Amino acid sequence: MGSRANGAAAERLTSTSNGRGPVDKEVDFANYFCTYAFLYHQKEMLSDRVRMDAYYNSVFQNKHHFIGKTVLDVGTGSGILAIWSAQAGAKKVYAVEATKMAEHARALVKSNNLQDVVEVIEGSIEDITLPEKVDVIISEWMGYFLLRESMFDSVICARDRWLKPNGVMYPSHARMWLAPIRSGLSDHKMEDYEGAMDDWQGFLKETEAYYGVNMSVLTKPFSEEQKKYYLQTSLWNSLHPNQVVGNPAILKEIDCSKVTVEDILKVEASISSLVTKEETRLCGFGGWFDVHFKGSEENPAECDVELTTAPSQDDGTHWGQQVFLLQPPVHVNEGDEILVNFSMTRADDNHRLMKVDLGHSIKQSSGKMLPRVENKFFIE
Amino acid sequence: MGSRANGAAAERLTSTSNGRGPVDKEVDFANYFCTYAFLYHQKEMLSDRVRMDAYYNSVFQNKHHFIGKTVLDVGTGSGILAIWSAQAGAKKVYAVEATKMAEHARALVKSNNLQDVVEVIEGSIEDITLPEKVDVIISEWMGYFLLRESMFDSVICARDRWLKPNGVMYPSHARMWLAPIRSGLSDHKMEDYEGAMDDWQGFLKETEAYYGVNMSVLTKPFSEEQKKYYLQTSLWNSLHPNQVVGNPAILKEIDCSKVTVEDILKVEASISSLVTKEETRLCGFGGWFDVHFKGSEENPAECDVELTTAPSQDDGTHWGQQVFLLQPPVHVNEGDEILVNFSMTRADDNHRLMKVDLGHSIKQSSGKMLPRVENKFFIE
Repeated sequence: MGSRANGAAAERLTSTSNGRGPVDKEVDFANYFCTYAFLYHQKEMLSDRVRMDAYYNSVFQNKHHFIGKTVLDVGTGSGILAIWSAQAGAKKVYAVEATKMAEHARALVKSNNLQDVVEVIEGSIEDITLPEKVDVIISEWMGYFLLRESMFDSVICARDRWLKPNGVMYPSHARMWLAPIRSGLSDHKMEDYEGAMDDWQGFLKETEAYYGVNMSVLTKPFSEEQKKYYLQTSLWNSLHPNQVVGNPAILKEIDCSKVTVEDILKVEASISSLVTKEETRLCGFGGWFDVHFKGSEENPAECDVELTTAPSQDDGTHWGQQVFLLQPPVHVNEGDEILVNFSMTRADDNHRLMKVDLGHSIKQSSGKMLPRVENKFFIE
Repeated sequence: MGSRANGAAAERLTSTSNGRGPVDKEVDFANYFCTYAFLYHQKEMLSDRVRMDAYYNSVFQNKHHFIGKTVLDVGTGSGILAIWSAQAGAKKVYAVEATKMAEHARALVKSNNLQDVVEVIEGSIEDITLPEKVDVIISEWMGYFLLRESMFDSVICARDRWLKPNGVMYPSHARMWLAPIRSGLSDHKMEDYEGAMDDWQGFLKETEAYYGVNMSVLTKPFSEEQKKYYLQTSLWNSLHPNQVVGNPAILKEIDCSKVTVEDILKVEASISSLVTKEETRLCGFGGWFDVHFKGSEENPAECDVELTTAPSQDDGTHWGQQVFLLQPPVHVNEGDEILVNFSMTRADDNHRLMKVDLGHSIKQSSGKMLPRVENKFFIE
């Protein structure tokens, strides 16, 4: 950031992308990486007990994958996964981190007496060189709704460059889920939007009266901007299980040992969800993910571990769920079928953010089909 | 942002800087410009009555500067200053805007029937070409505490490239002010900081107990990060005049027709402020600015207009003031003299942000000198 001399342009580009070409590294840093350089942010993730327990258990209940083996931790952050891998018996752990957090990881490794096993490398996984291929790649790469941040591209790159042919991915599998939900947020956001538009009307009057400028030509773009902000941007929320009003359905299944970046550029699914609650409101859809640590087919885990971010009363995670709100909410009944066409791709101007086309129709239990509704959303 | 082919590196750099070299334009956009592309943000500024009144009056009470003249509006945003300039009688107005807001400015100009006078140009003022030099440069470039955002560099560039020798700057002058203040924020921020450190202690215990990793080596960097965040980062606040406990003093005076970028890379001043309130607490310092529209020496305004962002009961602005908090607050009395050495430069990694060295000592009315205290602050 800031001043940089006219260097070789090639070094400034990463290979992560939205399928359209390379990304400028400094822009990527300004937009994305910089948050991870803060200890406060690392602490938030380290304080997520569900997340920590899942990774801890996946490693220590599967020591056979680690004892005497070489491990690569992609995006090591504070170094926690690398440290656990070493404590579980790894012979050598390469812990790669793109931000200055790598310095803290190095200090943490040393103060836990693991510097002979864990080597912290500051750099992008796409650029750095390792002296050898590894038996295990471990990484906590999941963003909101699994793919926000597109960090998995980097894990795939690491796998293709550095994993031995029979190597194991931690986690091994990932799934994206969607379910119809009820939520007071629909009403709140509509109130916020309408409030913003009322305020705009007052603003128009004042600007004309006091300053002699008619700004009504901006009403349409302003309203589109506010609509996008209040109504079309997915929200972080920690849903209660009672808010899920129909059977959740799988949108995407990923085998981390085989998936390519091309496979995840687009998430497209047609799903169906039976409403399970009597007389409720369909206010939108909640999206979340789970990952599993099953090892590989040739070299399975002894103890499968699941990390789920599904709505939970007591076991919520810092990921929450992503909520896509419908305006207006729709009354639905037990036995109604909600048919959804879901399509998610990367944002045009930032490969780490997403845009969603979500169309749904409702087949009431009587057999009557309500008209199809199409909505666009933005995962920002 | 996002994908960009390997183009000519020179086009990607701006000349704005922290005195250390050119800045990558896409990074600058990701870090800075992007907020200004939102109508919501423009509306916030357009709704600031003090700001709007000052610029409106400066133009319409000084029509002699505009009638039949050519004008350049640097960073036109929605186009408001350009529109007023045209309405005040300008023959031609060039309205330059770096973001897509330029499209809205163009629409606004057209819907107010001024497209024959106002030409909106989308681009950086450092790059674009005008067909002629101008009589007036008008711009609303002031950031928090005047210089945050370093937009004035762009205005200076515009002046040096495009202002006729006897041209006029709107505004013509600017001043930075500092005053000792009292504020409950000192206590709040210290509580927040101590809370974060207490929480950290609990986190350390849990991480060792549950996960077998000793993170105490991170306590020092964590505490420095939290200290910077809670105690050393200047705050936006809207101060009440009663919170000003001593005479405000001028830190910097700028003649917009003569100042260079070099002149504003560093703001350095030694000031003295007499405490004007009986038995109060010195909790920190408040910084603000004013600008004046005086025209030029050869071609003065008929009606001087002032825009001040000093603490005010009724005439606050969206700029508020910037507050630099002291820990702990100090008891002071009417007649005590607060001596301040103030030094502000641009942040190393982002020329649009600032770092401040603020040393102060108190000479009590009895004559006794309290020891000097040095503090660092960050304007983020």
